[in-house]
Amino acid sequence: DHKLKIFSLNSNEPLAKEVAEEIGVPLGACSVNRFSDGEVQINIEESIRGCDVFVIQSTSAPVNENLMELLIMVDALKRASARTINVVMPYYGYARQDRKARAREPITAKLVANLLETAGAHRVIALDLHAPQIQGFFDIPIDHLVAVPILSDYFKEKNIPGEELVIVSPDHGGVTRARKMADRLKAPIAIIDKRRPRPNVAEVMNIVGNVEGKKAILIDDIIDTAGTITIAANALVENGATEVYACCTHPVLSGPAIERIDNSKIKELVITNSINLPEEKQSEKIKELSVAPLLADAIVRVFENKSVSTLFN
Amino acid sequence: DHKLKIFSLNSNEPLAKEVAEEIGVPLGACSVNRFSDGEVQINIEESIRGCDVFVIQSTSAPVNENLMELLIMVDALKRASARTINVVMPYYGYARQDRKARAREPITAKLVANLLETAGAHRVIALDLHAPQIQGFFDIPIDHLVAVPILSDYFKEKNIPGEELVIVSPDHGGVTRARKMADRLKAPIAIIDKRRPRPNVAEVMNIVGNVEGKKAILIDDIIDTAGTITIAANALVENGATEVYACCTHPVLSGPAIERIDNSKIKELVITNSINLPEEKQSEKIKELSVAPLLADAIVRVFENKSVSTLFN
Ligand SMILES: Nc1ncnc2c1ncn2[C@@H]1O[C@H](COP(=O)(O)O)[C@@H](O)[C@H]1O
Ligand SMILES: Nc1ncnc2c1ncn2[C@@H]1O[C@H](COP(=O)(O)O)[C@@H](O)[C@H]1O
Repeated sequence: DHKLKIFSLNSNEPLAKEVAEEIGVPLGACSVNRFSDGEVQINIEESIRGCDVFVIQSTSAPVNENLMELLIMVDALKRASARTINVVMPYYGYARQDRKARAREPITAKLVANLLETAGAHRVIALDLHAPQIQGFFDIPIDHLVAVPILSDYFKEKNIPGEELVIVSPDHGGVTRARKMADRLKAPIAIIDKRRPRPNVAEVMNIVGNVEGKKAILIDDIIDTAGTITIAANALVENGATEVYACCTHPVLSGPAIERIDNSKIKELVITNSINLPEEKQSEKIKELSVAPLLADAIVRVFENKSVSTLFN
Repeated sequence: DHKLKIFSLNSNEPLAKEVAEEIGVPLGACSVNRFSDGEVQINIEESIRGCDVFVIQSTSAPVNENLMELLIMVDALKRASARTINVVMPYYGYARQDRKARAREPITAKLVANLLETAGAHRVIALDLHAPQIQGFFDIPIDHLVAVPILSDYFKEKNIPGEELVIVSPDHGGVTRARKMADRLKAPIAIIDKRRPRPNVAEVMNIVGNVEGKKAILIDDIIDTAGTITIAANALVENGATEVYACCTHPVLSGPAIERIDNSKIKELVITNSINLPEEKQSEKIKELSVAPLLADAIVRVFENKSVSTLFN
């Protein structure tokens, strides 16, 4: 009978280890290094012939290094006669380049989907894609997990009555996500009505909904430079919110993000370990939750040919 | 009627500029930058609808950055309705990963070919591929140029009689190349019979052919860490060569390369500008020759539907 094998590449080994422990299998033996000139050198050090292989890799920064590692690994697995190659991407890089916002732009999120298929991936397991439409960029099965339940459960433990809370979407694109969390916490929602003049620059306009005297929870999929979220937090306080929490699935936290968060009105930032945070991106305000049980569950269900759809909501 | 457009990405802009000047067209306007999180951001700033576009990019170090820039640019050109997308790769990274030397290795040179086709490339123009078999990795037309004439012409100008010369291949794989140079310089050849215990580590065995009392020219396609070539140079001197020159098409020159060359018996290292050498890889021993006229000629011939085959030998 065929076997389940889990391999980790270099972007998020702590998460991969946790997933493997959760499932109760050791991580597959492979070395992923660089030649002297910087080219990726991969050696798979055990037979995977006929196995169902799951490769865990977030295409977070350095995104091009991590993506090439993944593509080359998939190529190696294909040539080593894996039965199925399942790519587990807790964070899907380039997801924000998902449409032509201006003339003559690439659609890199679609390119990445094509590259993964070309390399030989049979299935993708992803988590909170920036746009759910990215599922349609693939011609292979894709399971799309969501972290809202994990984030919501954490706030539930704070035992704040729903009517004292408000769940806030920092933009129009995130209202569905805020609504999901609000349902779980039995709280109302509000929306920040903002305009973004340039990439990585955010500007808040006004707040739709009532935040006065409430504890606000900002929820987003990605927090990158943290411009949007910190300006939103300040706007919430100015509009009478008594406390502001923020949460997201993917802590990209590039550039001035940590400094901005530390200096903001945000009391606590709740993130997941979909992206492995380096030393210099730690902050006392950050609380990290693990998506390892969610991913482990999805992997086992895929391996056992069971439905993953219960993990979607 | 359709137009010729040349674009440069970030790996070798000086060469791209030279090529464009040689042809007499301006470089196409585009910006190739990074978002705050390191993702590639490309904006093509002029219409290329219906044009024959040539993109010049060497996938030298940082190879994964440069390759992703190229793939994303090809995606953008495709979506911007280019008539044909011609990828000019003066240096083709990952060319040494062209076969499974051990079990469960990737064949990244083939993967790169597939990725370029998937992104939307219609044709590739390459120079001195590490193995000519890489041409067969493509299902689109590929023109394979060689730099031997350029390197040979430089040595011809030294006016050394052929019988005082010997052209030396540092390994068995390079004998055909050495033979081509020898024919042009009317000189005999010799071969270094070596064994390589590990990647990036070289060891010389013995010399096949007569080098005693001769001026030796070592020729290789790639000089990477310069282990092979400097050990070969020393072996040649030990065996009676009076002077040792080295030349190659692709100056990868990673790790200790420059130090090794500076400390070696090599009198002069002749390279081409297929790879743009950063400041820290300069050396007084290095003489750089330009492949811009060769590439310009190939581009014009492809554009005019003329044969490129005369540039092969
Ligand atoms: N890595 C990135 N960092 C910042 N902005 C990006 C990135 N990738 C794409 N974008 C831009 O973000 C916008 C899409 O983000 P959104 O409106 O949140 O879906 C587009 O204008 C993209 O050009
Ligand atoms: N970037 C690289 N640097 C050093 N060695 C490499 C690189 N890429 C592949 N190789 C190894 O080089 C060998 C092939 O080189 P060659 O024998 O010269 O064709 C194989 O064993 C590869 O594993």
